[in-house]
Amino acid sequence: MSVEVLLDTGRERRIGFGEAVLAGTKTVEQLVEALEQADECGLAMLLTRLEREQCDALPGHLRARLDYEERSRTAFFGAPAARRDRSRVAVVTAGTSDAAVAREAVRTLAFHGLSTVEICDVGVAGLWRLQQRIDELAALPVVIAVAGMDAALPTVLAGLVPGLVVAVPTSVGYGIAEGGVTALHGLLASCAPGLVTVNIDNGYGAACAAMRALSVHESE
Amino acid sequence: MSVEVLLDTGRERRIGFGEAVLAGTKTVEQLVEALEQADECGLAMLLTRLEREQCDALPGHLRARLDYEERSRTAFFGAPAARRDRSRVAVVTAGTSDAAVAREAVRTLAFHGLSTVEICDVGVAGLWRLQQRIDELAALPVVIAVAGMDAALPTVLAGLVPGLVVAVPTSVGYGIAEGGVTALHGLLASCAPGLVTVNIDNGYGAACAAMRALSVHESE
Amino acid sequence: MSVEVLLDTGRERRIGFGEAVLAGTKTVEQLVEALEQADECGLAMLLTRLEREQCDALPGHLRARLDYEERSRTAFFGAPAARRDRSRVAVVTAGTSDAAVAREAVRTLAFHGLSTVEICDVGVAGLWRLQQRIDELAALPVVIAVAGMDAALPTVLAGLVPGLVVAVPTSVGYGIAEGGVTALHGLLASCAPGLVTVNIDNGYGAACAAMRALSVHESE
Amino acid sequence: MSVEVLLDTGRERRIGFGEAVLAGTKTVEQLVEALEQADECGLAMLLTRLEREQCDALPGHLRARLDYEERSRTAFFGAPAARRDRSRVAVVTAGTSDAAVAREAVRTLAFHGLSTVEICDVGVAGLWRLQQRIDELAALPVVIAVAGMDAALPTVLAGLVPGLVVAVPTSVGYGIAEGGVTALHGLLASCAPGLVTVNIDNGYGAACAAMRALSVHESE
Amino acid sequence: MSVEVLLDTGRERRIGFGEAVLAGTKTVEQLVEALEQADECGLAMLLTRLEREQCDALPGHLRARLDYEERSRTAFFGAPAARRDRSRVAVVTAGTSDAAVAREAVRTLAFHGLSTVEICDVGVAGLWRLQQRIDELAALPVVIAVAGMDAALPTVLAGLVPGLVVAVPTSVGYGIAEGGVTALHGLLASCAPGLVTVNIDNGYGAACAAMRALSVHESE
Amino acid sequence: MSVEVLLDTGRERRIGFGEAVLAGTKTVEQLVEALEQADECGLAMLLTRLEREQCDALPGHLRARLDYEERSRTAFFGAPAARRDRSRVAVVTAGTSDAAVAREAVRTLAFHGLSTVEICDVGVAGLWRLQQRIDELAALPVVIAVAGMDAALPTVLAGLVPGLVVAVPTSVGYGIAEGGVTALHGLLASCAPGLVTVNIDNGYGAACAAMRALSVHESE
Amino acid sequence: MSVEVLLDTGRERRIGFGEAVLAGTKTVEQLVEALEQADECGLAMLLTRLEREQCDALPGHLRARLDYEERSRTAFFGAPAARRDRSRVAVVTAGTSDAAVAREAVRTLAFHGLSTVEICDVGVAGLWRLQQRIDELAALPVVIAVAGMDAALPTVLAGLVPGLVVAVPTSVGYGIAEGGVTALHGLLASCAPGLVTVNIDNGYGAACAAMRALSVHESE
Amino acid sequence: MSVEVLLDTGRERRIGFGEAVLAGTKTVEQLVEALEQADECGLAMLLTRLEREQCDALPGHLRARLDYEERSRTAFFGAPAARRDRSRVAVVTAGTSDAAVAREAVRTLAFHGLSTVEICDVGVAGLWRLQQRIDELAALPVVIAVAGMDAALPTVLAGLVPGLVVAVPTSVGYGIAEGGVTALHGLLASCAPGLVTVNIDNGYGAACAAMRALSVHESE
Repeated sequence: MSVEVLLDTGRERRIGFGEAVLAGTKTVEQLVEALEQADECGLAMLLTRLEREQCDALPGHLRARLDYEERSRTAFFGAPAARRDRSRVAVVTAGTSDAAVAREAVRTLAFHGLSTVEICDVGVAGLWRLQQRIDELAALPVVIAVAGMDAALPTVLAGLVPGLVVAVPTSVGYGIAEGGVTALHGLLASCAPGLVTVNIDNGYGAACAAMRALSVHESE
Repeated sequence: MSVEVLLDTGRERRIGFGEAVLAGTKTVEQLVEALEQADECGLAMLLTRLEREQCDALPGHLRARLDYEERSRTAFFGAPAARRDRSRVAVVTAGTSDAAVAREAVRTLAFHGLSTVEICDVGVAGLWRLQQRIDELAALPVVIAVAGMDAALPTVLAGLVPGLVVAVPTSVGYGIAEGGVTALHGLLASCAPGLVTVNIDNGYGAACAAMRALSVHESE
Repeated sequence: MSVEVLLDTGRERRIGFGEAVLAGTKTVEQLVEALEQADECGLAMLLTRLEREQCDALPGHLRARLDYEERSRTAFFGAPAARRDRSRVAVVTAGTSDAAVAREAVRTLAFHGLSTVEICDVGVAGLWRLQQRIDELAALPVVIAVAGMDAALPTVLAGLVPGLVVAVPTSVGYGIAEGGVTALHGLLASCAPGLVTVNIDNGYGAACAAMRALSVHESE
Repeated sequence: MSVEVLLDTGRERRIGFGEAVLAGTKTVEQLVEALEQADECGLAMLLTRLEREQCDALPGHLRARLDYEERSRTAFFGAPAARRDRSRVAVVTAGTSDAAVAREAVRTLAFHGLSTVEICDVGVAGLWRLQQRIDELAALPVVIAVAGMDAALPTVLAGLVPGLVVAVPTSVGYGIAEGGVTALHGLLASCAPGLVTVNIDNGYGAACAAMRALSVHESE
Repeated sequence: MSVEVLLDTGRERRIGFGEAVLAGTKTVEQLVEALEQADECGLAMLLTRLEREQCDALPGHLRARLDYEERSRTAFFGAPAARRDRSRVAVVTAGTSDAAVAREAVRTLAFHGLSTVEICDVGVAGLWRLQQRIDELAALPVVIAVAGMDAALPTVLAGLVPGLVVAVPTSVGYGIAEGGVTALHGLLASCAPGLVTVNIDNGYGAACAAMRALSVHESE
Repeated sequence: MSVEVLLDTGRERRIGFGEAVLAGTKTVEQLVEALEQADECGLAMLLTRLEREQCDALPGHLRARLDYEERSRTAFFGAPAARRDRSRVAVVTAGTSDAAVAREAVRTLAFHGLSTVEICDVGVAGLWRLQQRIDELAALPVVIAVAGMDAALPTVLAGLVPGLVVAVPTSVGYGIAEGGVTALHGLLASCAPGLVTVNIDNGYGAACAAMRALSVHESE
Repeated sequence: MSVEVLLDTGRERRIGFGEAVLAGTKTVEQLVEALEQADECGLAMLLTRLEREQCDALPGHLRARLDYEERSRTAFFGAPAARRDRSRVAVVTAGTSDAAVAREAVRTLAFHGLSTVEICDVGVAGLWRLQQRIDELAALPVVIAVAGMDAALPTVLAGLVPGLVVAVPTSVGYGIAEGGVTALHGLLASCAPGLVTVNIDNGYGAACAAMRALSVHESE
Repeated sequence: MSVEVLLDTGRERRIGFGEAVLAGTKTVEQLVEALEQADECGLAMLLTRLEREQCDALPGHLRARLDYEERSRTAFFGAPAARRDRSRVAVVTAGTSDAAVAREAVRTLAFHGLSTVEICDVGVAGLWRLQQRIDELAALPVVIAVAGMDAALPTVLAGLVPGLVVAVPTSVGYGIAEGGVTALHGLLASCAPGLVTVNIDNGYGAACAAMRALSVHESE
């Protein structure tokens, strides 16, 4: 099993953005293999869930080419896409503890040239915090809403804005909320029409969904 | 096993209200036995989850003494307590489909002499419906909030009113919401401080909690 | 509890499409109340999960104004929006048994003036069926993918097309697949980036997500 | 994402007590941000689930202003409310291992000026321990009952006292009891009428529920 | 597949009591086959979960030899063992609705010659009902305790009596208690030492456990 | 959605046996469509989970061409493959109630020309029944073991025979065993090396696995 | 909360054996408190799930009085009961990894004066290992059967011996078997009549059940 | 409990391959005991899930006789079987992170003399990677397919090849995919006929299934 990595080099051509490497469950050898394959193909690459220890264990010449952000556990290998002018995606969190997952979405979008409006800690137990920002949010085509515990924020939000609302449940919580399944199931059961959901803590996936919604739009 | 029912005749003395009979899982013979024991002790009695078929299968002399309401599946056997003047409990529903459970709470309170403010179909996907009534709700010592699906209403409510908010998840819903476990778990995970929860569809229990909060209060 | 329905009359203004009535868990009285409120406000209305028995139990003057389709259990009350020319949404099913859920999505889109491309029974155990249609699907901004059992189709699809892929798990299946939770969880765990998911059997919600993605797009 | 904390400064005005900070899932930077916002607004603040390591990592000037209790993992930032004379809430535990959760409730009440009766290790496998104290408990308007494993104590208690009984399931236990879901579900299924429940280990929430029940009472 | 039944004819010799037939999931043809095999071997046989419809569909000559009790859904085929004088097993129920499961245990014991003390509706929300009978129960070697909902009764009981307490959770209950898993898990998590549990609604199994405890005892 | 069925006509060429139709969740119209497509392609077809009502609702000319067996709910449309001489697959059941699932496997194999050894009701609570037949089973390349409840039979079997053992958990059971998940999980956790499992009640799938193991074997 | 421990000093009188202390979830202060209370009452005491670190952290004068066995994590405080001559309980394990749980049962019985027959690693994938010992086991009134993974051993055993079989599922296992729920549910679903079960890893509870079965027997 | 290990020395004779030792949950003393028993019987032995720390803690004379591979956590004690010429089993992984589980299968097969074709990182989000190798795979009698997350690869594969496809779900994944239950359930629900499944991360079991399929074949 000498080669354990086989990059999907045609992904950008097919779906509009390239393969990212989910680093957390990979060995350093596998990460090196992935980066070298990307390098050979001339691909820039996003790494997600890259722990600081993994990052620091990479050979120096590869480590040096990574733009790593510990908070979101993301790294850019090679240059990200050119930043476009106008923010068309908001990333909103219900609680302070959801910020790391939100950062993963923000960094994924940034890697692909998209800037974001970030709004934090506007959970519905203090509803005025959300209502202050609602006009701003209602003007955007995509809102990513990140929430743990009972995850009521995305439902309230989706009742107030017309754009695509992508909900990201987080694993933040304790007791019955631990791990995020309660948040996830609550979002899927939402009474707000057209709310869509991704896996727990999947800020990367929510950002990809935003890119799908926006990029096709552009191509028309 | 000639006698299968043994009423807890001292319950009212101990906790302030008497035993109710959960009728749905009992045979007609058992219901008769319970009503006759109540009669012998001179107790009025509330029956919950009494199906129309069960009700109609009772012997005429017992059936005649029941005040049955099909919607809430409740019956009063004997005279309910005298109605007090002022409503101090609200019963609020998120959706139209939650009305039957809400009625069980309303009827339980009525049997014990308590009148209620009822507010229906004010789920958070259309938040203005709740906000129109919030001042009225904020003035009451107890609010019972009935909600299925993602059950976001009680959380929003508990962020806006100071009284005791008793949440009742309902089994209304489909897919991951079917049966009400998603609603229940979401309520327990609520980020609103001090929200308390009872079992799925347990309008009776929520009403009893309200009576506990109010009656001790009165006795002080 | 004389009024149990309170329509969210401002929904279309806020989010671009009006409230629909989830009929299955409502009484005939509640349905009448909803339709009459809609009528008073001059709103056309979509009903979902309306059983034939419920439909036939409505008063004649209301029944007559419903365009009911039994297969999808949907009804249009009042005139649907004018049909636009170009199909920009595909609705794809993995198996024959997923067709009823797919129809709910198609009818929801039709009620709002959107036509659809429908592709049936292209599950991945016979992959050529999907591959024959892939160019057509890759040209559309939104693909709704309906699948039960192990729900592998949306993942394969999202690896092949650039548009927004909204997955709808269905309750079709037996054993561990019964009820659709296995399909739902599999979709959320998908390794295809940017795949989004709605509740089990929620064709209506997937259609609403498509409208969110498309309508904001249009308004820009 | 320069600002990740946005305190709900109007909470006390709305619901009678201010926002608490759930510290355990926050970074030190976020805790500093929260304390500084509180300081600017002149708010005293309760912190829960604050680990000793987090506490010690705070800047000295903030650390110095915290009254930290390791057992309950709570801290008071600023002066707690003046203590009132009479205890009107009991906090009862089923087992010795439930004491930390009970302490969180006691400290939350203390921060808001409420003193408590504390009764420990009176689980129902040795029923006499509870029965010795039952008259004392029956005289109080609110009893918080903390129990893990099978959580039978709150049910027995609620059959013996008239006040509001708020059950707190704990994560203490092993095997099928590990994590507390068995205790939680058992409490929700309780056959004692009017028993209400909060999330696993949520001593803070139970105390807030007690405050809701008591404070409205007072305002009448 | 001409023969689908193969009785375990040596069971009584090995474990002290013979095979019973779980009738509910069998076809009438299979029941006939089982009864005929028993007849050929000269075995009396207990049938459990035999629905009235199944019973009535049996050929007349077999039906005539059955002593059927609808309440417990049990039938005796052939003569039960001779009744012994002294009751050494109690069967106790927490609620009226648990009576059918309790009857299955009573009938199983009766078929094997054991008489029982039956005590009904002594759930712990009205604890005095249990305490009235506790001396009687403490004198018996085996107590079968049947309880649904939160199933607190067997725990309280096992703290008060020295004999073997076999708990039978029942499927009686609604919401989170529906189906009996909450009762089952609560019993397994019991803080009462030495409480043992069988499957939900398995009155037959509890009776067999009692026979195992008693019969070996006798043989010593 | 005029055409909802699209047969996978190349399946036999690719994997050695053709597509079967899972009938239970299909409408009569869809079944007709499937049969007509098969007819046009000159394919014989197996139908599984075909209810008697569905079968009888088919148009006469199609019904007439079906060889239907109610017990297994299977039908052959067109001629099955020629029967080969030697049985190389055994189908073993733990209990009488597992027979219907076993029949589905037997019929699937028969449709493809494979005869079977059938052994019934040899569950491990009466171990001698299995041991009597073990030499016969040890000589066969594939054993399909069908078991519900705790599904201990396949584990014991796989410790005694060298061939491929395909376990089929069944939904037979009550309480914690209801629906078959307990059986399924127990089989996956088996301590017998090399035991493989299919979905609950999936006799068809087990037969297909047997065909995969045998047919490649033959082609070598 | 100065006193957090309240020993159930009358337990031995009521149920035949005294309270044990589940040490793992207690602080050192609480353990000291428990031991000192026991000392004051002149009670010997069993401690379970006592980690080496906890044991070593006890004050020297208490540590010195403990007979600690690390393997089973049990300690005797004070003298155990006098050992009786004849072993009447067997403790049997399915796998080597189940030995620690089995030791907890053996030590519990030893503390109360009961000796045991121990038989290890006789899982059913190699059935002959069990069959070699079956006559010995069939002669004993109680067999404790400890098994993880699919836990098939207790079922096979209960089909071969007449005594009370108490099954202890263990948390040994991986994948679907991790944590022991699969083993637990499999045991509850067992087709062997009269098999009883305790919580996962609860060797202590199984031993107590054995004492209940045996001690009452003796007193007759 | 002086002897806690009892090897199943007749296993190879009965089922064609010997007992392996699942090392991870065993103490060093138990491992020594197992190796010494094997040595006495002249058996070579495979160890699985052997951590490096366990391996290094073995006495030198035993450690020296182990061929340990850390990646797969496997060791050979004694000489493996002679390698046969032709690869007849493929081991395929969906993602790079599944490689360790795949290695366990490869090493198990190698220990028994079977060589393998290994194909890595061919998940269905980039379908071309699988399709490039499909002819090679279609020519083999057994394919082991290792996949985490949504585990769609084995389903697609089983639709394209005629051999036995043994799926191994892995615990790789996060959120709803964490631990591998979602992958496992998805595989069991697969719409590909004849796909069989083993426990999560059970590369050893999949290899044993392959040996069962192949070895009996050879003996005919």
